[in-house]
Formats: sequence, structure tokens, C-alpha cells
Amino acid sequence: MLTRIDHIGIACFDLDKTVEFYRATYGFEVFHTEVNEEQGVREAMLRVNGTDDGGASYLQLLEPIREDSTVAKWLAKNGEGVHHIAFGTADVDGEAEAVREKGVRVLYDEPRRGSMGSRITFLHPKDCHGVLTELVTSAPSRH
Amino acid sequence: MLTRIDHIGIACFDLDKTVEFYRATYGFEVFHTEVNEEQGVREAMLRVNGTDDGGASYLQLLEPIREDSTVAKWLAKNGEGVHHIAFGTADVDGEAEAVREKGVRVLYDEPRRGSMGSRITFLHPKDCHGVLTELVTSAPSRH
Repeated sequence: MLTRIDHIGIACFDLDKTVEFYRATYGFEVFHTEVNEEQGVREAMLRVNGTDDGGASYLQLLEPIREDSTVAKWLAKNGEGVHHIAFGTADVDGEAEAVREKGVRVLYDEPRRGSMGSRITFLHPKDCHGVLTELVTSAPSRH
Repeated sequence: MLTRIDHIGIACFDLDKTVEFYRATYGFEVFHTEVNEEQGVREAMLRVNGTDDGGASYLQLLEPIREDSTVAKWLAKNGEGVHHIAFGTADVDGEAEAVREKGVRVLYDEPRRGSMGSRITFLHPKDCHGVLTELVTSAPSRH
């Protein structure tokens, strides 16, 4: 069961400038930053609100750290904008298997490490009406 | 103050098929449907979770009803996908004025009618790092 919008992933060319835009314009503050070497990005999580499943919803700002990362290629094609959306679930393994059985392509054989110690997988956008969709199970106590 | 991710707006070619995808794949049910003649769309709101400001987060699926609607033009250029994101606030008038004063272009002089009796405005994506951004104040008691 998917119980929340966990985050909206936004690709940007310059993380520091984009963080500053969200802070100056709306007052959103950085909750967490990290580099994900596997995904080839550095990222900032801005917490927007808590959710009634005990989690929270974030904006995830993503800047590529390598030209061959998927986010770098996406930016080169599309420019800055919404890169993906992510739904939170208590059971990313079970959800991934369930959607795979429904014929939706799941991009990883097994969930991988996401932001803040979460476990994540992605669904193929062509099977999701054009939306790159992430499923995420948060690490305990990281809201 | 922006207190929640109110919704993610997703443009699609066929609303019924897209609603069915979200139902069959994730179990999301339609919370509300309407036609917005002014925006030139018919839409379905799928409620994902409640939020700690007393509101909720939705997916808003949008199908154009006129070829000259902005969503129709967007779909012709981009194909299906995330069209905009929306932040909830108790005071869309005040927030719109505040961001305007910071140099962000606000697309409407005054907020207009959005989903479920809400009042909305949009911020120019070129001023928001590529993200078409909506600000929305819900009608009372519509969560």
C-alpha cells in the first residue's frame, strides 16, 4: 500500500542556487543533504509537511555530479524541472513485486539505497503515463 | 506560509485510462472529478494522504477538453507527464503578492477558481527553475 507522496524530485543545474530560490521565495529550509554516488547526484531534501502515515513530504533537489548520470542526461534533454515523483510505502519490496506482476517495468532487480537511508526503486515512465515513479521505504525514524 | 504539497498535476491524453492505471496499479481511488472550462480541462483528484496542516495531498490528473488549452499545448510538446506542482497555503492572495514582490512572475492578477472550489494562482516556470508552480487555498472543509 502506498501511503503518502514522499517527495517530488526536481532536477537542477546548480543545487546551491536552487536551494536558495526555495528558501528565499517560500521559506523552505534544507532538512538534509547528501551525495549519492551510485545515482550520480548531490541532493537537498526540503521538508514541506508531515503526513498522516507518520512520514513526511519533501522536495528533493537533484544536481548531477557526473555527465553520464541519468539526471545529467535528463537535464541535457529537458532542462530544469520535475524529474520524478515518489510514493512512500512501508514495504517497497512487496510493492515493487506487486506492480511488476501487473506488467509495469521495475528498473531495479532489488531496491537500492535512496535519500536518508531509505530503500527505493523506480518504475519505467513509459509504463506510468509518462511519469518516472519512485517507490520508497524510509529508514526508521527519519522524518 | 506554504504548509503542504497540495497536489501534483499530471497531464494525460485519456483521463479514464489514466485513472484506471492509478487504480489498478496502486489502488488510488477517485476522490473528486470536475470540468474546469476556464482551464480547458477535465480532471480527477486522487487523494493520497492527509497532511499535518489539516489538508491533504492529491494527484490531479488532467485531460484537455480543447485543443487551444494550455494543457493541450503542453501535451503536444512534451507528451504525458508531470505538468505542475502545487503548494497549499491558508492565504493564496498574500503568498502570491509576496512572491511577486520577490520578482517571481505570477500568472494571474487575482487568484482564480481551482479544483473543489479552491482559489489558485500559478508562478512562471522560468522564474521557478523550470517548475510550473501553483499556489492553492482550499475551500473550507474540502479535504
